[in-house]
Amino acid sequence: MKISELSRRTGVPVASIKYFRREGLLPAGRATAATLAEYGDEHVQRLRLIKALTALGGLSIAATREVLAALDRADTIDGTLGAISYALPVPVAESPAADADEDARAADAAEADVAELVAAMDWQVSDVSPHVRGLATAVKELRRLDPHYRPDRLVAYAGLARSIARLDLERAAAIDDPAALAEQAVIVFALSAPVLELLRRLAQEDLVRRRIAGDAAPGAGGAPEPAADGTAAP
Amino acid sequence: MKISELSRRTGVPVASIKYFRREGLLPAGRATAATLAEYGDEHVQRLRLIKALTALGGLSIAATREVLAALDRADTIDGTLGAISYALPVPVAESPAADADEDARAADAAEADVAELVAAMDWQVSDVSPHVRGLATAVKELRRLDPHYRPDRLVAYAGLARSIARLDLERAAAIDDPAALAEQAVIVFALSAPVLELLRRLAQEDLVRRRIAGDAAPGAGGAPEPAADGTAAP
Repeated sequence: MKISELSRRTGVPVASIKYFRREGLLPAGRATAATLAEYGDEHVQRLRLIKALTALGGLSIAATREVLAALDRADTIDGTLGAISYALPVPVAESPAADADEDARAADAAEADVAELVAAMDWQVSDVSPHVRGLATAVKELRRLDPHYRPDRLVAYAGLARSIARLDLERAAAIDDPAALAEQAVIVFALSAPVLELLRRLAQEDLVRRRIAGDAAPGAGGAPEPAADGTAAP
Repeated sequence: MKISELSRRTGVPVASIKYFRREGLLPAGRATAATLAEYGDEHVQRLRLIKALTALGGLSIAATREVLAALDRADTIDGTLGAISYALPVPVAESPAADADEDARAADAAEADVAELVAAMDWQVSDVSPHVRGLATAVKELRRLDPHYRPDRLVAYAGLARSIARLDLERAAAIDDPAALAEQAVIVFALSAPVLELLRRLAQEDLVRRRIAGDAAPGAGGAPEPAADGTAAP
């Protein structure tokens, strides 16, 4: 198909398609003349993924390029999944330090909290994981701001995060082809975070409304509670 | 204290403090001369909150203003919590439609999925909740991109989201003062999303490593699995 048809089928403007080409996110089409190229279904699929990563996943062009490169390197499953995960933006910005000494102490305390948590969960994660560093930054901010912060609460959240990760990986478990698995991982890693966050907000609203209404404990009616392993209770 | 001291104690540059003043995020200090104002501990606390909302929470100035206004209106607890929740940015950007008819069908299907989910969970949420609309947008993108998408998987995620929301609200349950509760809610609503997302990524990394190593099922060692209500199992 021509670039105009590619644009029509994906909803991505021609100028954006050319931009993604120049940035190396989209492979070249098959040249049919000096200024014409023929595109295929693989371009449609790749453009949809680029659109999703940038729009829904909120990734920068540079981060999108890294994720796509990891996808194209899909030779071993572990390397691909790791590269994709580490290419994701860490959703924490460090705020400027008020006092260098106090800040260093807070950073040490937060790092210790995270190290204890990782040990308590028996999590096998790399020391150089950007997510470990990101978590330490987030915990530092929570320590500063939340008068009710307690490190042991993190363990309860971590247990639920493990159940969620198990659901995430279940979705990928049935896929054998490394490239298909990598694409699924991109979707799961990058795109399901907003879904979970929105579900959490809806659940918060429900709980607040019930508390105000003096309603029965939520969970008494409706869908069954999931068991700790993420499957629905019988 | 003078503005220079306020800047030193919070790590926020004087120019930014003046900007937040002009934008109405920070109340005026007590005027002590034509060009001098005296600031107090309440300004330190408010500035730390502004910094956290914008840096850690990723809120725009406009969204931060809305959240702080809700905080200052802290008259009834339900109104305040609702206003704060609805002021949060919805973490989903809609990508442009490729085909208007196909897009409308996908949007209808996604809305039906969300409506069924809310009914299945017996969630009491407003029809005009921005989070309901945001979830429908996210589900529409997942439907498009994820060949393994199944609406019933959402229920498993929603059950875990409810457990997380319960932990969130537990942290606020012991607070009686509406203003203090509202501030806690801001922290919980806006700032703990990155923490959960990072925990999830660490858990994903752990599970992937164990799967590759052919390790024992995760959860066999380490911390006990949390029960469905988010408390640690005995």
